[in-house]
Amino acid sequence: MLTRIDHIGIACFDLDRTVEFYRSTYGFEVFHSEVNEEQGVREAMLRINGTDDGGASYLQLLEPVREDSTVAKWLAKNGEGVHHIAFGTADVDADAAEIRGKGVRVLYDEPRKGSMGSRITFLHPKDCGGVLTELVTAATGAHAEHAEQTEH
Amino acid sequence: MLTRIDHIGIACFDLDRTVEFYRSTYGFEVFHSEVNEEQGVREAMLRINGTDDGGASYLQLLEPVREDSTVAKWLAKNGEGVHHIAFGTADVDADAAEIRGKGVRVLYDEPRKGSMGSRITFLHPKDCGGVLTELVTAATGAHAEHAEQTEH
Repeated sequence: MLTRIDHIGIACFDLDRTVEFYRSTYGFEVFHSEVNEEQGVREAMLRINGTDDGGASYLQLLEPVREDSTVAKWLAKNGEGVHHIAFGTADVDADAAEIRGKGVRVLYDEPRKGSMGSRITFLHPKDCGGVLTELVTAATGAHAEHAEQTEH
Repeated sequence: MLTRIDHIGIACFDLDRTVEFYRSTYGFEVFHSEVNEEQGVREAMLRINGTDDGGASYLQLLEPVREDSTVAKWLAKNGEGVHHIAFGTADVDADAAEIRGKGVRVLYDEPRKGSMGSRITFLHPKDCGGVLTELVTAATGAHAEHAEQTEH
């Protein structure tokens, strides 16, 4: 069951400049950053709020790190903007299987590695009203504000 | 101060069909629906989760009700997909003024009427990395699940 808006994925050409825009304009700070080699992106997660399922909602700022990544191709076609949305679930495997059974194309056979140790998959935007839709199961403890304070 | 992802606005050609997609695929239900004549849209709000600022996060599904509405023009150019994102704040007037002072174009001189009695404004997407960005102050009590149960 999908229980939260986990994040909004925003594609940009210059991650550092975009992080600075969100910090200086709104006061949003980087909660986590990493390079996802498989997805071909460098990313920053800005934690916006906690959610009542025990998770959180983020902005995920994405800069491609290679020209053949899907985000690089998307940017070349569309320019900067909202690339995808993501719903959080406790069980991405079960939800992906259920949604696949309803005839929506799930892009991966098995969930892959997402931000902060999460497991993710994507649904085909042509089956979702033009919206590239991600399903995410967070790693245990990844979302909690106190986790960052106590673990680092 | 912006304290939550309030909603993701998704533009569609057929609201009823899109509501049915989100219901049958994910189990999301319509929390509220209305026509906003000023914006030229018919909309459905799907409540996804509560947020730790006392608000909630929604999907806002938007169908234009006239051809000269901004959403109709956007759909003609882009096709269906994510139209805008919205951040929630307790004081849209103060945040809009502060953000305008930083050189970001705010589209309205004064906030206008949004979903469920909220007050909203928009920031120019060209000043926000290609993201049409809305600021929202909810009407008192609009978000709480118990409010719907007790007030109706």
